[in-house]
Amino acid sequence: MGPAIPKTLDDIYNDYTIRREALLTALTDDATEFYEACDPGKDNLCLYGHADGNWTVDLPADEVPPELPEPVLGINFARDGMERRDWMALCAVHSDAWLMSVLFFYAARFDDSGRAELFSLVNQHPTVYEVVTGRVPRTKINKRKQPLYWPDDGKWYLVEIHSVDPDTMEAKVQYATGEFEALDFDEVIPSGHMSLLAR
Amino acid sequence: MGPAIPKTLDDIYNDYTIRREALLTALTDDATEFYEACDPGKDNLCLYGHADGNWTVDLPADEVPPELPEPVLGINFARDGMERRDWMALCAVHSDAWLMSVLFFYAARFDDSGRAELFSLVNQHPTVYEVVTGRVPRTKINKRKQPLYWPDDGKWYLVEIHSVDPDTMEAKVQYATGEFEALDFDEVIPSGHMSLLAR
Repeated sequence: MGPAIPKTLDDIYNDYTIRREALLTALTDDATEFYEACDPGKDNLCLYGHADGNWTVDLPADEVPPELPEPVLGINFARDGMERRDWMALCAVHSDAWLMSVLFFYAARFDDSGRAELFSLVNQHPTVYEVVTGRVPRTKINKRKQPLYWPDDGKWYLVEIHSVDPDTMEAKVQYATGEFEALDFDEVIPSGHMSLLAR
Repeated sequence: MGPAIPKTLDDIYNDYTIRREALLTALTDDATEFYEACDPGKDNLCLYGHADGNWTVDLPADEVPPELPEPVLGINFARDGMERRDWMALCAVHSDAWLMSVLFFYAARFDDSGRAELFSLVNQHPTVYEVVTGRVPRTKINKRKQPLYWPDDGKWYLVEIHSVDPDTMEAKVQYATGEFEALDFDEVIPSGHMSLLAR
């Protein structure tokens, strides 16, 4: 057995980031090794990004139904019928689809706002497909810094908006100090307690 | 071949809602038929929610790699070793995981804000797991109506906030007339062109 089953938002997000890094390593740094492992002469193979940070190209799980959603089967059979670049992109797209299935398998007991928070954390990272195809750098995090004004103390703060929940109109922001705060836009904006600077 | 491959946000969202309804039908209205179809004496079976609104319990795709991410394999082997209710919940969790993998497989070329918009549309619906376990009614849509004030004409409008993109601070709202509008919170809130009423 591997690590314990992730249950909290932080644990599930962490599991995602580690599996994503493992898959990225297979498809970028270790691309040659990955390519060679996907021999079309072998049985059905899958690319796994493991929760310990390693990747393997392996046969699917022996037991069915498996403990976890499985990655797409038989990527090796497609290898020699496509341009290498296209095949790598296909493996990347299937890797992203698999990461999402694992993420929401673990988050099955979350409600809609929990799912929204988890997704907004995950969506800060470029997809495996974006990295493998060179569209977005591997480490880019799509957080935008915003100046935030608190009239109470007359000061501006630079915050990162991590997520906004459209149902509750609550935003999760992070100050430059690293401190997190949940802001209720419904309250703070009309009352003038907070202003977000227009770009 | 089935329907054309969905490419736009609307088409992918539509594909999701149809597949989700098909899976819900299998696991609720047609639960007895579904249960009987999952005979543990048969080969590896998968539950498919198709883009035409039908569901089937079937062998996995012949060709590998398949055109689309596949649902979990061998749900029928688990049927008689668990409480029926738990097994149905397990099938529901795997169905949600599969819906997510199909969704993001189709959305592979979307950027982060496209993914966020798609997810916020999908996340309005209860998951298959929430419906099958009775946590949330099947048809509930988690849109919240909000009064919106436009000082320009001094009128209140009732709007539904469909999604908020934290990167661009743009919200997609729908008026009671059915009309959609994209609002840039960065602009409309500080300038006083719009107020959202505190609850």
